[in-house]
Amino acid sequence: MQRHVGTPPGTDLLPPSNSPPPRIEAILFDETNCEHKEIREPEELDALRSEEKILWVDVNGLGNAETIARVGKVFGFHRLSTEDVLHIDQRPKLEEFPDYLFVVVQHPLLEQGHPFEQISLFLGRGFVVTFQAFETNRLAAVQQRLLEGKGRVRRAREDYLAYALLDLVVDAYFPFMEQFDLRLEGLEAEIIGNGSPGAVHGVFDLKRKILQLRRTLWAMRDCLAQMARQPGQIIRAETAPYFRDVQDHVLRILEVAELQRELCTSLLELHHAQLNQRMNEIMKVLTMTATIFIPLSFIAGIYGMNFDPDASPWNMPELEWIYGYPAALLLMLAVALGMLALFRRKGWIGSGARGEAG
Amino acid sequence: MQRHVGTPPGTDLLPPSNSPPPRIEAILFDETNCEHKEIREPEELDALRSEEKILWVDVNGLGNAETIARVGKVFGFHRLSTEDVLHIDQRPKLEEFPDYLFVVVQHPLLEQGHPFEQISLFLGRGFVVTFQAFETNRLAAVQQRLLEGKGRVRRAREDYLAYALLDLVVDAYFPFMEQFDLRLEGLEAEIIGNGSPGAVHGVFDLKRKILQLRRTLWAMRDCLAQMARQPGQIIRAETAPYFRDVQDHVLRILEVAELQRELCTSLLELHHAQLNQRMNEIMKVLTMTATIFIPLSFIAGIYGMNFDPDASPWNMPELEWIYGYPAALLLMLAVALGMLALFRRKGWIGSGARGEAG
Amino acid sequence: MQRHVGTPPGTDLLPPSNSPPPRIEAILFDETNCEHKEIREPEELDALRSEEKILWVDVNGLGNAETIARVGKVFGFHRLSTEDVLHIDQRPKLEEFPDYLFVVVQHPLLEQGHPFEQISLFLGRGFVVTFQAFETNRLAAVQQRLLEGKGRVRRAREDYLAYALLDLVVDAYFPFMEQFDLRLEGLEAEIIGNGSPGAVHGVFDLKRKILQLRRTLWAMRDCLAQMARQPGQIIRAETAPYFRDVQDHVLRILEVAELQRELCTSLLELHHAQLNQRMNEIMKVLTMTATIFIPLSFIAGIYGMNFDPDASPWNMPELEWIYGYPAALLLMLAVALGMLALFRRKGWIGSGARGEAG
Amino acid sequence: MQRHVGTPPGTDLLPPSNSPPPRIEAILFDETNCEHKEIREPEELDALRSEEKILWVDVNGLGNAETIARVGKVFGFHRLSTEDVLHIDQRPKLEEFPDYLFVVVQHPLLEQGHPFEQISLFLGRGFVVTFQAFETNRLAAVQQRLLEGKGRVRRAREDYLAYALLDLVVDAYFPFMEQFDLRLEGLEAEIIGNGSPGAVHGVFDLKRKILQLRRTLWAMRDCLAQMARQPGQIIRAETAPYFRDVQDHVLRILEVAELQRELCTSLLELHHAQLNQRMNEIMKVLTMTATIFIPLSFIAGIYGMNFDPDASPWNMPELEWIYGYPAALLLMLAVALGMLALFRRKGWIGSGARGEAG
Amino acid sequence: MQRHVGTPPGTDLLPPSNSPPPRIEAILFDETNCEHKEIREPEELDALRSEEKILWVDVNGLGNAETIARVGKVFGFHRLSTEDVLHIDQRPKLEEFPDYLFVVVQHPLLEQGHPFEQISLFLGRGFVVTFQAFETNRLAAVQQRLLEGKGRVRRAREDYLAYALLDLVVDAYFPFMEQFDLRLEGLEAEIIGNGSPGAVHGVFDLKRKILQLRRTLWAMRDCLAQMARQPGQIIRAETAPYFRDVQDHVLRILEVAELQRELCTSLLELHHAQLNQRMNEIMKVLTMTATIFIPLSFIAGIYGMNFDPDASPWNMPELEWIYGYPAALLLMLAVALGMLALFRRKGWIGSGARGEAG
Repeated sequence: MQRHVGTPPGTDLLPPSNSPPPRIEAILFDETNCEHKEIREPEELDALRSEEKILWVDVNGLGNAETIARVGKVFGFHRLSTEDVLHIDQRPKLEEFPDYLFVVVQHPLLEQGHPFEQISLFLGRGFVVTFQAFETNRLAAVQQRLLEGKGRVRRAREDYLAYALLDLVVDAYFPFMEQFDLRLEGLEAEIIGNGSPGAVHGVFDLKRKILQLRRTLWAMRDCLAQMARQPGQIIRAETAPYFRDVQDHVLRILEVAELQRELCTSLLELHHAQLNQRMNEIMKVLTMTATIFIPLSFIAGIYGMNFDPDASPWNMPELEWIYGYPAALLLMLAVALGMLALFRRKGWIGSGARGEAG
Repeated sequence: MQRHVGTPPGTDLLPPSNSPPPRIEAILFDETNCEHKEIREPEELDALRSEEKILWVDVNGLGNAETIARVGKVFGFHRLSTEDVLHIDQRPKLEEFPDYLFVVVQHPLLEQGHPFEQISLFLGRGFVVTFQAFETNRLAAVQQRLLEGKGRVRRAREDYLAYALLDLVVDAYFPFMEQFDLRLEGLEAEIIGNGSPGAVHGVFDLKRKILQLRRTLWAMRDCLAQMARQPGQIIRAETAPYFRDVQDHVLRILEVAELQRELCTSLLELHHAQLNQRMNEIMKVLTMTATIFIPLSFIAGIYGMNFDPDASPWNMPELEWIYGYPAALLLMLAVALGMLALFRRKGWIGSGARGEAG
Repeated sequence: MQRHVGTPPGTDLLPPSNSPPPRIEAILFDETNCEHKEIREPEELDALRSEEKILWVDVNGLGNAETIARVGKVFGFHRLSTEDVLHIDQRPKLEEFPDYLFVVVQHPLLEQGHPFEQISLFLGRGFVVTFQAFETNRLAAVQQRLLEGKGRVRRAREDYLAYALLDLVVDAYFPFMEQFDLRLEGLEAEIIGNGSPGAVHGVFDLKRKILQLRRTLWAMRDCLAQMARQPGQIIRAETAPYFRDVQDHVLRILEVAELQRELCTSLLELHHAQLNQRMNEIMKVLTMTATIFIPLSFIAGIYGMNFDPDASPWNMPELEWIYGYPAALLLMLAVALGMLALFRRKGWIGSGARGEAG
Repeated sequence: MQRHVGTPPGTDLLPPSNSPPPRIEAILFDETNCEHKEIREPEELDALRSEEKILWVDVNGLGNAETIARVGKVFGFHRLSTEDVLHIDQRPKLEEFPDYLFVVVQHPLLEQGHPFEQISLFLGRGFVVTFQAFETNRLAAVQQRLLEGKGRVRRAREDYLAYALLDLVVDAYFPFMEQFDLRLEGLEAEIIGNGSPGAVHGVFDLKRKILQLRRTLWAMRDCLAQMARQPGQIIRAETAPYFRDVQDHVLRILEVAELQRELCTSLLELHHAQLNQRMNEIMKVLTMTATIFIPLSFIAGIYGMNFDPDASPWNMPELEWIYGYPAALLLMLAVALGMLALFRRKGWIGSGARGEAG
Repeated sequence: MQRHVGTPPGTDLLPPSNSPPPRIEAILFDETNCEHKEIREPEELDALRSEEKILWVDVNGLGNAETIARVGKVFGFHRLSTEDVLHIDQRPKLEEFPDYLFVVVQHPLLEQGHPFEQISLFLGRGFVVTFQAFETNRLAAVQQRLLEGKGRVRRAREDYLAYALLDLVVDAYFPFMEQFDLRLEGLEAEIIGNGSPGAVHGVFDLKRKILQLRRTLWAMRDCLAQMARQPGQIIRAETAPYFRDVQDHVLRILEVAELQRELCTSLLELHHAQLNQRMNEIMKVLTMTATIFIPLSFIAGIYGMNFDPDASPWNMPELEWIYGYPAALLLMLAVALGMLALFRRKGWIGSGARGEAG
């Protein structure tokens, strides 16, 4: 959670710490041509807007709030939208303005400190403007396709471009889900194997990441559903199925996340059950050992007493009896066998042995 | 989760690994006639479409993306739909296009690696096109009925055929639910019997399968509800009750799945309670044995000390007392009886015995 | 779950196993007259339908699918409805057809194998047709009232009769809820009393029954709400409050069921807490006994060693000391008192005693 | 749950057991006058109804079903409403009839057997009729205000009177919530203090009461929301804010109840954690004592053996060694110190001491 | 929960205890001018209301109910609204009256006794009136901005002022969420580190605070959503995006609170798992020590018995055997090694050592 969210509206805009200075690239294309330009001053963008061609402006890095504000001014964005671009842990959302749609999505990173990279996208008549918080260009794949003229994106309009970009961001979640699946399998194996304490921390850690992903995905689902539902001036009817498709992807990821979350909970239960079972095992061993040998030791203890047989005929005459020692040993044996019989009747020895094997 | 979901739209289509090459069968029927043809080139299908007769094309195997795309082209399917056919772990969904409905459902397998087989169904005026991912023909029963002219399906239109096919897929869930019921009963017996550790893994495993089924069923419920709700151009009003009926089946399966899931949770609680109860048992035995015999051993230990009675009149004069030994034994007996009385007052002996019997 | 649900629509109808052969009774009544007839051939019913009088046909037993189908044909029921009558573990539902309403409800039995008896009710202009799965006539009370001319039911129309019948089924749930309440109280007393293992099985068993009831009741609530909401051709506006009333009863039962389910969970928690508390008790006793006597035994053990005092002045000179024995006893006493003081400081003895009394 | 709910509609009405015979009071008032009359025969009420004045009839006690029915007849209440008055554990509900609103609410008692007293209120043009189940007049405060002419109630119409009465009932919940808060605090202190077993029963008992209150409050919320939402013929637009206000009170109580329920759950978890922690403590003490002294006792045991040193030079020559005894003692000391070092390395002694202090 | 909520409407208003006497400040501003006045008599405010300028009245302290009522009378507030101002633990809500909106929000304090400070805001044509319960001026930041003419607030209308004030209150939640995050991290470290008992109380305490925040935030979300949704007479269309923005902030805080709540639960589970794991550890050490040494002690005990070898050749001839002592020692060694082998086979020693290291 960032601090400047709390600043009163009306104060000067602050760029997020650790975001590099903005680098602006513009791509102007139609079905036949495609120009790629590096832009220095945001105001140059104004000249690039045209009726026929589609303009995609990508701003990589938010390190200079003023530049961002100037880009916003060129396209006439609401001041609040520009502010939201700079507050880089927004929840995904769609805001409809008369002239443009403003979409905030989160690209998953799940690194320490930065679980997500915010990508803000403005979609208006003839243009798409995107802002990326960190240096790596997450949208390079679409750029490539545009420049190479591959795929539908060159033949379609700006709403299809917006779809292609959002699709790219959503698809970035899949590898994380797969990695989580692998980790869950590993943790399950570890827990069934020996219940090492690390596994519990692992499950706890994984669950936290899944919860983070999930709350972001829910918000993304909502905003994609909104885009798919009402084609209108900005999103054309023929592009709506594509947005439905990407919403579908989010739903699938969400379902996997829900399933993984439930499996995390089940794993903890499994771990708990296993720990208890092992404890039972341990206690049975202790109890059986103690219950057999403590009485035996007591018998041995009795005949280790030093009452003087010479002082009285009542004093431990067994010690001088001819079968005293064998009788004592037999008594001990009888006690031990009796205890074992009792354990077998309680089912401890049987189930203990099974538990060992299981 | 499959990797090519993440590929950018516009790249070439990839068939799912381990799906056999497509085998195309066409059945052209009306109330009186029914032709069955093996198709080699998808384009042959175009000639089979007619006003009066109903055409069912079944494509078994998705191993060749190009063939699938060509089938799609013959019927004019949207490119996204054709892509979805090839991504074989879609969530069940219904998509309405102006000329056709596109339904994705999942046939349960619950085998390692492939919990489901995806079946995609296109329903348009005069035709039904189905795609099955794996070799076994899951829709053979309806094919049989068509060829033999049994049942209503020959007399009805293509929407009834679609219903019959979906009904077949939904009914494939029932045996799994029954099998789960049996496994739950088995696991309950096992847990009440002896609480073997295998039972917990079994519950965990079953719960995972139920969760998988459930998330698929929820999506199927949604898309069947959608089909039942709005009869229109493609689904006729007189067929809607049938779709309502199959939706009802899904609801029943879902409720059973919910119940089973809750029973899984209850079984784990039961197992836990039982383990704890057994632990209590074990500890009571240990504690009673130890609490009785440790003090007794201590008394025996005292009279086993080697203080020299000759060195001092204070040194263990009991050893030479005439009733020393009987007195010591009586003392031990008194201590043991006192302990037993204490245990009875605490209710350990009574409830322990009851616990044994229970 | 029954197997023939999975059969393809269009196969021959199968009666449920263990349902007796159908016995058909017809009651034809208006405010002044009431005839009661045993019917042999379903087709006789056709003659009984009239404009002025109300006809109630009750079919008791589903053992002959053909008879059921013939009854359906007389009244013009949809084939799917007739099938649903025969599949006797339907979820409660309401289906609206142009000429009649079809209601499926479940009468609670909660016996082994048959938790419910399905009662299917058709309500059309001038007639009510009911089907009961098993032999006992669950609707006898309304029959009685009709024949005796008691209550409003003779003066009202067929929708009121349907209400009276549904009300009877819903009211059959109340005794089960009361019985569950009693069992919950019993289980609570048992758990607080001594936590016998049977109580946990009892709670588990009760919870399963409550879950079963609950899922059936939710579906009944939905279908009664639907009937109360839209009075129309078949349910008159003046009868709607009655349906609202019976829906209200279902809501009350549902709330009680929810409460009971939550109490089941709480009881398990209580049981768990109690078991743990008892374990604590037990372990405290063990630990205190062991912690006091093991060191004492060790001291006694030392003075039981056989080092030869004659061989060296270092060898256990205490044994020959004049106060050796009393000093050893005093040392033991000091150790024991020290331990007791430690336990009191830890609060084990105080809280142990309180725990005993609690 | 009462039995006669299950009686067929159309049987004679039965008064609730243990409800006193009805006592009817009528208050006829407008802004300037206020008459208070004791009524003997319900039919007298008919004469009191007037266009200008507002009539409040309060029936205290439901011990005579016939009287209740006669009151209902005077005002033209639906038979079902009158029945609902007599079934005194209705869930709170609002029913709209053309000429009157019928509201059932529950006044909290939370006594053994009677957690609630049902208060039924009929609101029509110019009159309010209330029925109270038990003897104490729960509505006395409003009666007082009317008679003394204090507050707005005399100047307003019958809908405001209904509001004032419902407000009184809702406000009766506040003291219970406060009392629950106090009990929760007490239970928390008790659990943190020493985890006495009584606390768990206390939490369980409190949770049950909160659950009971909650389900009643949810239903009251629903019916007050309905009254606030649609001002119409019976509830005037200017009175609607008052109903919104009382609905707001219910919402606040509900939120407190939810919070308390969650705190109950948390308290149980806390108790559980504490019990486990204490068990850990206890076991550590036992383990440390046993692990130190059992090996020491074993060493002492060895030198307590009676092998005859004279019979062989191999037989316990240590016993006659000059430093035998001190060496044995040193060995014991070394073992003990080694064990302590091991415990310290495992963190048992450190954290044990901290645990003691915590 | 405060007592006078329960008082009948119509009694005299009571100020909340411990609220200071009201101090009234008025700010009258338009884009160019800004006057700040201390007001003594509420009636002076009437003269300040104007068509062109915007009036913000801030009442700090509710210690005098009559003053509050007089302020309300000047602006024509409904009596219920004025009452709500005085009942200072309202749930956040929005009430729409024909001439003004009435908003209650809660400023977080989370101090003992006062988790929140209620701030009531009235927004009408040309004025905003705010009431603060306690002395500290929570709205000083906006006052400052107005007086200094910074930001948009001077140029905008009264609805923007209301937004700025609500935004200030919402932003006050962020530091608490951050503080909770830090505490959660601390508690996690503590639990993973050594599972000190304080950590569990800490989690319990934190969870309670999060639950409190959450229920307040849900209500705030609802009322802000209502404000953002329907711009109308009082909230202008151009201000609506600002309210959407602040609602978005509340949503983000809520999501963080949900996440923190789930993490609290996970932490308790982690703590529980860790405690169990440690217990397992402890018991393993105890069991292994006891299981090895108790049998050994028993053997030593046997040879410590005093049977007289002279009395019979059966009486412990081992004692006089030449290899008696070494043989006894070897037997003991064999038993110990056998036990260790058994433990290794059970995986106790291996996993025990790993557990130690983990």
